[in-house]
Amino acid sequence: MSETQIPYKIYLSEDELPKAWYNLRADMKNKPAPLLHPGTLEPMTAGELEAVFCTELVRQELDNDTPFFEIPQEIRDFYKMYRPAPLVRAYCLEKALDTPAKIYYKFEGNNTSGSHKLNSAIAQAYYAKEQGLKGVTTETGAGQWGTALSMACGYLGLDCKVYMVKCSYDQKPFRREVMKVYGASVTPSPSETTNVGRKILAEFPGTTGSLGCAISEAVETAGAEPGYRYVLGSVLNQVMLHQSIIGLEAKAALDKYGVKPDIIIGCAGGGSNLGGLIAPFMGEKLRGEADYRFVAVEPVSCPSLTRGEYRYDFCDTGMVCPLAKMYTLGSSFIPSAGHAGGLRFHGMSPTLSQLYADGYMEAISVQQTSVFAAAEEFARVEGILPAPESSHAILAAVNEAKRCKETGEAKTILFGLTGTGYFDLLAYEKFHNGEMTDTVPTEEAIAQSLARLPKV
Amino acid sequence: MSETQIPYKIYLSEDELPKAWYNLRADMKNKPAPLLHPGTLEPMTAGELEAVFCTELVRQELDNDTPFFEIPQEIRDFYKMYRPAPLVRAYCLEKALDTPAKIYYKFEGNNTSGSHKLNSAIAQAYYAKEQGLKGVTTETGAGQWGTALSMACGYLGLDCKVYMVKCSYDQKPFRREVMKVYGASVTPSPSETTNVGRKILAEFPGTTGSLGCAISEAVETAGAEPGYRYVLGSVLNQVMLHQSIIGLEAKAALDKYGVKPDIIIGCAGGGSNLGGLIAPFMGEKLRGEADYRFVAVEPVSCPSLTRGEYRYDFCDTGMVCPLAKMYTLGSSFIPSAGHAGGLRFHGMSPTLSQLYADGYMEAISVQQTSVFAAAEEFARVEGILPAPESSHAILAAVNEAKRCKETGEAKTILFGLTGTGYFDLLAYEKFHNGEMTDTVPTEEAIAQSLARLPKV
Repeated sequence: MSETQIPYKIYLSEDELPKAWYNLRADMKNKPAPLLHPGTLEPMTAGELEAVFCTELVRQELDNDTPFFEIPQEIRDFYKMYRPAPLVRAYCLEKALDTPAKIYYKFEGNNTSGSHKLNSAIAQAYYAKEQGLKGVTTETGAGQWGTALSMACGYLGLDCKVYMVKCSYDQKPFRREVMKVYGASVTPSPSETTNVGRKILAEFPGTTGSLGCAISEAVETAGAEPGYRYVLGSVLNQVMLHQSIIGLEAKAALDKYGVKPDIIIGCAGGGSNLGGLIAPFMGEKLRGEADYRFVAVEPVSCPSLTRGEYRYDFCDTGMVCPLAKMYTLGSSFIPSAGHAGGLRFHGMSPTLSQLYADGYMEAISVQQTSVFAAAEEFARVEGILPAPESSHAILAAVNEAKRCKETGEAKTILFGLTGTGYFDLLAYEKFHNGEMTDTVPTEEAIAQSLARLPKV
Repeated sequence: MSETQIPYKIYLSEDELPKAWYNLRADMKNKPAPLLHPGTLEPMTAGELEAVFCTELVRQELDNDTPFFEIPQEIRDFYKMYRPAPLVRAYCLEKALDTPAKIYYKFEGNNTSGSHKLNSAIAQAYYAKEQGLKGVTTETGAGQWGTALSMACGYLGLDCKVYMVKCSYDQKPFRREVMKVYGASVTPSPSETTNVGRKILAEFPGTTGSLGCAISEAVETAGAEPGYRYVLGSVLNQVMLHQSIIGLEAKAALDKYGVKPDIIIGCAGGGSNLGGLIAPFMGEKLRGEADYRFVAVEPVSCPSLTRGEYRYDFCDTGMVCPLAKMYTLGSSFIPSAGHAGGLRFHGMSPTLSQLYADGYMEAISVQQTSVFAAAEEFARVEGILPAPESSHAILAAVNEAKRCKETGEAKTILFGLTGTGYFDLLAYEKFHNGEMTDTVPTEEAIAQSLARLPKV
């Protein structure tokens, strides 16, 4: 098919939408390591996990072999409210960069939660409801996961308690209002409402919080209230499974036009977007059917893949959650108050960590002032105001396209545009006013945090 | 085609997108009355209008006969960045209301400006650039038009000066940051930067502003700076022309599935959304090819169609702009500080006014607390957080659907969902906290304002 026939945006029709999620682990030779119990340091059993998570989600979490999970009809109907997400050919960006590269992005921001997080939120809320639960608890960083879960719970009539990382709570005052519209309660974390919150506040009185702290509080609350379970928006295998819808749709859209990407780029906090986007492509690579370059982009201020160690660590700061084997900066690592709240997690998805350890994926880290400069350039030519998290991927894609200009190569670049930045205007304002700074964690800070980890 | 085959969202493909705007005036027997010069009260000539507006836009403004205007390729390319806008079948809302009615909405919020305003912004900016101008000035109410114009100007490299109605400037602190991302300057109106602003501030020191004031300031500034023209986001015939893209797409999408709406509903401030949505359907009605009910929904606080008079009035508070024959509350009418900033205009599109006067259209007014209640209900079942302006149409559509439940009629309802409410969270917060009140202008306030009008 000739180049000019590719539209600016490719929308799949409803009958082309994926009917099953793809479980990348089924094609991995080295499976991600099992979660360990925080007390015994033994692999968590299904029964132990079910005290924290919904039963069906535990089944998904532990299944390393089944390649496809059928998407229940009620979730598929919900998906139809805001999916398919468009696959966009960035003609305007290509023109502005004067690059021979062909740039595509999968845009997940066209829903009120403003990001891809809704894909897993509706799945997790659905299984909680199926199990007859009263509600769920969770943490949120940038606020996108909390908003997504609020929307899903509002739709299904479930109660929703959100612990929001304090720096995001302060920087995004309107986020909690959106969550309220959907009926959720929102508490800034660390808070005085939990044992673990009080402990963290006593140790670090001025802390602006982290995803790790907020997770601890949400898990404690779920355990304390009958009829509640904890749900998590990233990191876990089950989340990678649900988010595979991103990559499945993107691949179906590209396949329609016979396009094969050379490089696939995504921002990486806990890994939910990147894991979802790359899933079917990585599957082809693992099965030896095709080759792609995969690039994870993380902030210099929270560089788990690029500067962390691959080892067992707690998923939370309070050390009450299971341990996961992952690239980590140490669960007591608290990043400086950067604006990409969704990328402030100390660890990384165990699935992605294993793939990175096995050499299937690259990782880079970028500074936030460069990220915002790329975000603004993108907004002006492509019309979409991107979230700071997503803008990490934009910067990396732009840099690849610029390299293509130098070398004359017409590479095909696919990146994940995970969401919109409507609630990040304080950060944009700081950038404009020249008040934004770049921070690099010291070797000592990372070493100290890693030294506190248990020897497993 | 059977009912169940209609998807949740209908997207036209790029080759199905309209290639020309439709000029509804060509099919009107009674044409809208001409604009009058504010000094002489004689019909404005093209030459006089060109002192304020771009030349090509003046041609479009004055042409009551040409049914179609070809959309320039550069504008069509820009449209492809964010169009087609989806036509959504509101299955979830229908289910929640348990109504036999079939509800469709044309969603114009999937772009960063958050509304349909971008459709005319890019057209007006394009013609300004074609004419070799340096920049444009404008006013903005809710901020959606200003954001849209900033995006269009940022894309084309034009300077953009925005006067923003003060109550919106205060209620939507992040709106001006979005405009800054796109390179615009934003001044709260009334301001001390213009003669007319200073005069209005002297007369009404505590005023929260109005679209009418902001228009006066933008027009004065355009006149004072060489290489600038004024552009307007609503009211004018040219804007109705550009916005016809909404209705043309909606009609094409419905035609694909053989669906014919019974009732078409839109919110009405200056008329840009309503005029655009109904255009091709109204054309059929005017030509006697089909019949539809058209319903304009305005706020009780600014009821130009339902309580205004049909007569010549200034488009602005400062009485420096041309006069238009329209339904008006009088150009000195300043509505109470309601939250639907985009519906605070004292008048109404001359085209729509003529159609309303000739009995082709109905109008109703609704209270803002009911509007926000409908908005929240809609957000929870349809997933989209609507703008307060758009929510006026939601409330009217919901009420029609409820009537269908009572009567058992399976009417087909189409309404315009003009935009998203991401920048209206302060209003949602007020609504939640029970701090929102409904206001009804007194007979005296409207009579006093109308008494100040010139006798034409």
